[in-house]
Amino acid sequence: MTHVILFRLARREDLPAIVRMLADDDLGSQRERSVEPLPESYYTAFEQIERDSNHDLIVAELNGEVIGTLHLMFLPSISFQGGLRAQVESVRVDKMCQGQGIGSDMMRWAIERAKNRGAHVVQLTTHMSREDAHRFYERLEFKGTHLGMKLSLK
Amino acid sequence: MTHVILFRLARREDLPAIVRMLADDDLGSQRERSVEPLPESYYTAFEQIERDSNHDLIVAELNGEVIGTLHLMFLPSISFQGGLRAQVESVRVDKMCQGQGIGSDMMRWAIERAKNRGAHVVQLTTHMSREDAHRFYERLEFKGTHLGMKLSLK
Repeated sequence: MTHVILFRLARREDLPAIVRMLADDDLGSQRERSVEPLPESYYTAFEQIERDSNHDLIVAELNGEVIGTLHLMFLPSISFQGGLRAQVESVRVDKMCQGQGIGSDMMRWAIERAKNRGAHVVQLTTHMSREDAHRFYERLEFKGTHLGMKLSLK
Repeated sequence: MTHVILFRLARREDLPAIVRMLADDDLGSQRERSVEPLPESYYTAFEQIERDSNHDLIVAELNGEVIGTLHLMFLPSISFQGGLRAQVESVRVDKMCQGQGIGSDMMRWAIERAKNRGAHVVQLTTHMSREDAHRFYERLEFKGTHLGMKLSLK
């Protein structure tokens, strides 16, 4: 039996599944609140993302269930002769569905979307501790050329 | 004599000075075209940035001359409970004016702007080869916790 994975823009009702995946690892569990009902701040952010044509919140769906997500954004820039950058954040695949190539397929789908939009690069950062993620992105031909630095304001 | 540096949003007529600074280093010289007149693609990108309230293209001005620039952007996100990220790209100070703390002051001004907007983090990436930049951001209390990965689409 072949399982067909559908990639599409997220809908409001997908948010609990998205937040559940964001919360379901060591780093995410410290900063998310995957509770019922979800804190309103998640819905406020969803509405901002939904109405901004430079933001695509993506989900992967299998048999009607949301089992993957990523946030693809397009960043206009002066550098690279006014080139458009694509950036990927918050990539997750449900732990029950990992190791089946779903994350790679979802990333390839996002990369194709970035190409069609005319982006000259897809960029992302992953925590230095996520070595499996580094290998995952290297297999997709990403190069780890940059240091990602953060200043927490809270 | 005290020189007062003014930080403000960039205007269309600042673009040649901005592009000149972007082009004025080893990495930038390979990808920019700081010529007169500037390629139209720079102006197209400027217009997109100017009309998007999530993008602030900043310049530093000294005695009427543009001598610094950075691009501050605000990224709505589902992660961190729907938290707003700030991101900084394309930070440059005119080579004639480096070593005087102008870059730090410009970054501090941008960080304050990000705080006022409610961002929970300021993030950026710098090329692994720019070790002086790493130290510069560390002095501003940024932590190099992430690997920045890029996939070129051209």
